[in-house]
Amino acid sequence: MQTSTMKLVTIVAEAVLEDELLKEVASSGSKGYTLDRVHGEGSRGVRASDWEGKNIKIETLVTQEVADKLLTVLAEKYFPHYAVVAYVKSVEVVRGDKYR
Amino acid sequence: MQTSTMKLVTIVAEAVLEDELLKEVASSGSKGYTLDRVHGEGSRGVRASDWEGKNIKIETLVTQEVADKLLTVLAEKYFPHYAVVAYVKSVEVVRGDKYR
Amino acid sequence: MQTSTMKLVTIVAEAVLEDELLKEVASSGSKGYTLDRVHGEGSRGVRASDWEGKNIKIETLVTQEVADKLLTVLAEKYFPHYAVVAYVKSVEVVRGDKYR
Repeated sequence: MQTSTMKLVTIVAEAVLEDELLKEVASSGSKGYTLDRVHGEGSRGVRASDWEGKNIKIETLVTQEVADKLLTVLAEKYFPHYAVVAYVKSVEVVRGDKYR
Repeated sequence: MQTSTMKLVTIVAEAVLEDELLKEVASSGSKGYTLDRVHGEGSRGVRASDWEGKNIKIETLVTQEVADKLLTVLAEKYFPHYAVVAYVKSVEVVRGDKYR
Repeated sequence: MQTSTMKLVTIVAEAVLEDELLKEVASSGSKGYTLDRVHGEGSRGVRASDWEGKNIKIETLVTQEVADKLLTVLAEKYFPHYAVVAYVKSVEVVRGDKYR
């Protein structure tokens, strides 16, 4: 099975940012995403007993170049103001040409 | 903590394929899976504003051999006809013998 | 985009363990988590047709040290008694200092 290496970018954020973040994902050059609702407790010292709100988890399979672009936008526009978490991992994708 | 390296296969597909894909996962030799419902926008040019349906995300921890078998079946039987995304990553698993 | 390498620990377990596992996650030194409900079929020979219950998937971004601590607790206290799956992967995180 021939695969190609792509980057899977995961973004966890407050649900209120859904529309805005999906626009950033598309603008960065991503060809698709999945979106899931999750519960979460952030790293700002809020305890789960005090607040356990609805967060969103967005995942998108992209090239290294698109990943860099997306993370840069997140770091500049969102990280200073919102409880956004973003991380990247390498994955082996079947039919990787779909995501370029 | 001793761990062993296994492959985590992720499949994202239309919800209508749930039963069929879970059979493929089991047939390939997988010992278990998790299934989650997610929203998604694929790479076929459909815009989220036009269509944002219910997709499924299946994850299964398997050996390299089982991963290859599963991806081959997906590529041959599903990729030509359905909006299926599949990718693999290496993970470190505790009690890895459970999945062999 | 400068990133740092962190460990993403994923725990899949029966939903009844939610409170207990989140306490273990916090005790190990984790600064946050996401929690999602998933369907799952374990590796204990239970067939999906017989039982397909609600499981939880917890993910937490931590240092290698915290990951080791958490996995050790899981292996000692939970693995002998419950259908718990745990695995770790390396991810590249933006603003990694938040999770240390």
